[in-house]
Amino acid sequence: MNSVKIGIDLYGGDNAPSSVVEGALFALKNKFLSPEELVIVGNEISKEDLDKISNLQIVPAKNLVSNETKPTEVLKMKESSMYVGCEMLKNNELNAFVSAGNTGALLSSGTFVAGRLPGIKRPALVLALPSKSNKPKILVDAGANAEVKAEHFYDFAREGIAYAKFLNLENPRVGILNIGSEDEKGNSIVREASNLLKEEKKFNYVGYVEARELFDDTCDIIVTDGFTGNNVLKTMEGTAYFILHELKETIKKGGLFTKLGALFLRGSLKSLVNKIDYRSYGGTFFLGVNGVLVKAHGSSDAEAIANALYVAYRAAKFDLIEKIEI
Amino acid sequence: MNSVKIGIDLYGGDNAPSSVVEGALFALKNKFLSPEELVIVGNEISKEDLDKISNLQIVPAKNLVSNETKPTEVLKMKESSMYVGCEMLKNNELNAFVSAGNTGALLSSGTFVAGRLPGIKRPALVLALPSKSNKPKILVDAGANAEVKAEHFYDFAREGIAYAKFLNLENPRVGILNIGSEDEKGNSIVREASNLLKEEKKFNYVGYVEARELFDDTCDIIVTDGFTGNNVLKTMEGTAYFILHELKETIKKGGLFTKLGALFLRGSLKSLVNKIDYRSYGGTFFLGVNGVLVKAHGSSDAEAIANALYVAYRAAKFDLIEKIEI
Repeated sequence: MNSVKIGIDLYGGDNAPSSVVEGALFALKNKFLSPEELVIVGNEISKEDLDKISNLQIVPAKNLVSNETKPTEVLKMKESSMYVGCEMLKNNELNAFVSAGNTGALLSSGTFVAGRLPGIKRPALVLALPSKSNKPKILVDAGANAEVKAEHFYDFAREGIAYAKFLNLENPRVGILNIGSEDEKGNSIVREASNLLKEEKKFNYVGYVEARELFDDTCDIIVTDGFTGNNVLKTMEGTAYFILHELKETIKKGGLFTKLGALFLRGSLKSLVNKIDYRSYGGTFFLGVNGVLVKAHGSSDAEAIANALYVAYRAAKFDLIEKIEI
Repeated sequence: MNSVKIGIDLYGGDNAPSSVVEGALFALKNKFLSPEELVIVGNEISKEDLDKISNLQIVPAKNLVSNETKPTEVLKMKESSMYVGCEMLKNNELNAFVSAGNTGALLSSGTFVAGRLPGIKRPALVLALPSKSNKPKILVDAGANAEVKAEHFYDFAREGIAYAKFLNLENPRVGILNIGSEDEKGNSIVREASNLLKEEKKFNYVGYVEARELFDDTCDIIVTDGFTGNNVLKTMEGTAYFILHELKETIKKGGLFTKLGALFLRGSLKSLVNKIDYRSYGGTFFLGVNGVLVKAHGSSDAEAIANALYVAYRAAKFDLIEKIEI
């Protein structure tokens, strides 16, 4: 794909629209993409900001979706930036769309406005976790589908594999998250899903993996339902911040050497917690819909928005959607 | 309860029977309980060890349960130490029974040999997590029931509340683990369970809690299904060890000051990871069966066995089982 169009939801995120405008300017300044490739969905941009960029495409849309908007409600908000962006994805007017807005509303717009890819029943949130080997570990579904059937694991695996290709992981190993490695472990959905994935010769399926191996090199793609996946993600986050908190307490109470030690290790610890906090990632893909849909975190600042735009741009260039094998 | 009898599974655990014999001797030496209160289930004890203790009660039983034993198989192993111990619980010949053996087999023996308390459908694994406020946080179910219905959350809450009383938590707040705080979040089981707990006036139900609050003071008892609970627990463990691993890598690559910092903080970091690693806890209660049943970790050494005996002893003295309100 040579020329791509990347849309950004002007009204998505706690700090929108200013964070989005600044993020877009940041991305352009750093040549993450060119002005011709960027489309701002929403028109609350000052004359002053507009003057900074030439050739920028602006699509009119309204600021209607809030954090309180229910997933079903957004489907009636046809003039909202979220709806308009997803509609443009569907019509191929955009190759990718980035939003830091209400997650539930975005998943709903992605599924029902952009629409599912033919052959995909369940689009899912796909993201890369850090790992001990520094190779990314992919988690699918990180929170889109709280209620699943075994057959949906098939979609999750394909979405994860497409993302693995994007991340240059060769012949990626697919594992199903379970509470033990033996065949009889887990619930009936997990066991049925395991049999399904085993039968599909296209998958490099390695069986069950446990959450304590999350950061180990035992597989490349961890497939799970969105309820468990989201809980796993938030447990990682909670644990990392708990450790940071406890260290701070130890240091407060500690003697001179402890305080010195803390001072010397401070930078390393901070960057480590950031590495684990998924909210600091550029964005999460909602894969399985028509077009590249990137969910940036609600509290994204300008730099996070710019990073999400960059990730979306690279995924569009890579033709990520075409990599989902039906 | 004045005089109690605490049984220990001689053949449970990777290092059994020697770890169990040494653990029992350690517990007696430290007066965790008296020889009259201890019952060893299994008779592979050397004359030499026996001579160290007078008044010790030994109940003959065989070493039949391995890590490969299926939960259904143990129910036919009537002479196994695990079966015999659970049968003694049922007959009130023991007030508590401790085993570091095969978890699935122990849950099965507990449920079907010791038997469920009247009014309890689902016994569950109950354990205390560390927290920022240093008050324990209780997690139910930590892995016993991978397949649940909404009504089982009612049992989990009661089991958690009994344990909270044991830990001196007054009017404990009960929360249900979910992937968001809004009413419509999660799956249908969680939503139905939330309505059930809301209706029960005996519970101090505070609604949904998220996994990122695991260590915060937003509730005292986190109720979830055993599949999610076990994944949360193992994610905590995996994350803590990942952070430790990354710090080690940073230190290896770091300069003198980083290395010094690491040296000064080493003890604090180690004890922190231990605090989070549930395997280092004395033991986990399997609550809801006839009698106090404690699962010690499979890799328990003598000290861990002794700690589990102490926890079991205190729970029996406290009459923990009577605290489960039917």
